[in-house]
Amino acid sequence: MKGKVFLLGAGPGAPDLLTLRAAEILKRADIVFYDALVHPQTLALASRAEKIPVGKRCGSRSTAQQFINKRLVDAARRHEVVVRLKGGDPMLFGRAQEEIDALRRAGIGFEVVPGVTAATAAAAELGVSLTRRGLSRHVAFVTPRTGQGERKNDWAASVLAADTAVIYMGAGLAEEICAELIRRGKSRATPIALVESATLPGKRVFHGTLTDLSKLARKAGDGPAVVLLGEVLRAALAEPVLAEKIEAILRRA
Amino acid sequence: MKGKVFLLGAGPGAPDLLTLRAAEILKRADIVFYDALVHPQTLALASRAEKIPVGKRCGSRSTAQQFINKRLVDAARRHEVVVRLKGGDPMLFGRAQEEIDALRRAGIGFEVVPGVTAATAAAAELGVSLTRRGLSRHVAFVTPRTGQGERKNDWAASVLAADTAVIYMGAGLAEEICAELIRRGKSRATPIALVESATLPGKRVFHGTLTDLSKLARKAGDGPAVVLLGEVLRAALAEPVLAEKIEAILRRA
Repeated sequence: MKGKVFLLGAGPGAPDLLTLRAAEILKRADIVFYDALVHPQTLALASRAEKIPVGKRCGSRSTAQQFINKRLVDAARRHEVVVRLKGGDPMLFGRAQEEIDALRRAGIGFEVVPGVTAATAAAAELGVSLTRRGLSRHVAFVTPRTGQGERKNDWAASVLAADTAVIYMGAGLAEEICAELIRRGKSRATPIALVESATLPGKRVFHGTLTDLSKLARKAGDGPAVVLLGEVLRAALAEPVLAEKIEAILRRA
Repeated sequence: MKGKVFLLGAGPGAPDLLTLRAAEILKRADIVFYDALVHPQTLALASRAEKIPVGKRCGSRSTAQQFINKRLVDAARRHEVVVRLKGGDPMLFGRAQEEIDALRRAGIGFEVVPGVTAATAAAAELGVSLTRRGLSRHVAFVTPRTGQGERKNDWAASVLAADTAVIYMGAGLAEEICAELIRRGKSRATPIALVESATLPGKRVFHGTLTDLSKLARKAGDGPAVVLLGEVLRAALAEPVLAEKIEAILRRA
């Protein structure tokens, strides 16, 4: 008897931003391999499952991908419902392909359940649409992170071409991002927002322009963060700047 | 007494790809303004609500955006829980900003609940991750559709710069998309996939290369479709091509 592996997107953080389908599958799960950033309440839905952390956290030690692949295959030979629970959406910066390929090679059935990705959750938090008629008709989701021995990753080309850009796993590389984009002609005055721990109680939003990126990244904590860039942010940016000016005036008065 | 407007993402099609949060809000809704592509089962969750179609369907007549904005504001003055239910995610090709701006101007509170967008749902359907270490570190989400009087929309620049691209609302413009991308240097052999009605029972997947786009678009029906482009599709493409070759050999035998 062989089981099936479900690659589930856990969504951007808040446990109620899970899909109904993912919740149902978790309830039926025999074993769950979960990422570090998955919410405890989400994990708790898998009430009858053995739960195994294989957490990857940017910059911290993680279970090697090949070992995760092997464990998924082994688990599917022993259990009916095997869940691989990933933050956000499995198909965006989730390394799902390596697991899918391993499952295909082993002849094990799988199903991917999409989830809400951090970019649109951050946009929801900001109240700023990533697209906007007359202003933004294309959006790039990029990461400047490149693994050892990987081919050149020209993430900046995508940011420069797009009307709006969202940078994943970039807060720790703020200085390099800022320098590279300005060197290649992106305006220093490009509005940006850094959204940390989107949809969680500890969420924080920082507004500024491209030159402020390092400063904003230092202000932020070590929660997962995305950086948004583009003219769509200008209206949202205007409001906090105004609020700051009013506060400054009140302090002087 | 003033109400609050919830801009809810209904997800890519299947009713169980709604988030738990969106489902809860629908149950409490007094009035729901919904898009044409929202699933009847999703709408049925709003059991106590008045339900008003304001459906936009690519190429067909739709309620003018300004009129929708006005109705949302009016509804929030009469009801506590007003829902604007949109296909996919509200912040990606959902015209949410126009509604948000109208609500802000009227001083009405709002909350955006993100949803699963068509691109990642299509990727899940294909079993192909949009990103892949060593191959794809940036993804563009674009639409070639431009409204009357809009500034130039250089969607092709984003497609050309990105490792992987997903084109929304593009199936009806297949010929123009193909011509423009090839004119600007995109390889005719770029693997593509057209996914129609992703996550619904009538879903269909078409594989090919960039030169096949018009042909694939004609094969597809008039369900909502996204087009994916990029090397990440090559592995997925190999399989159906092989299957076709085997079929051809069997027919000759």
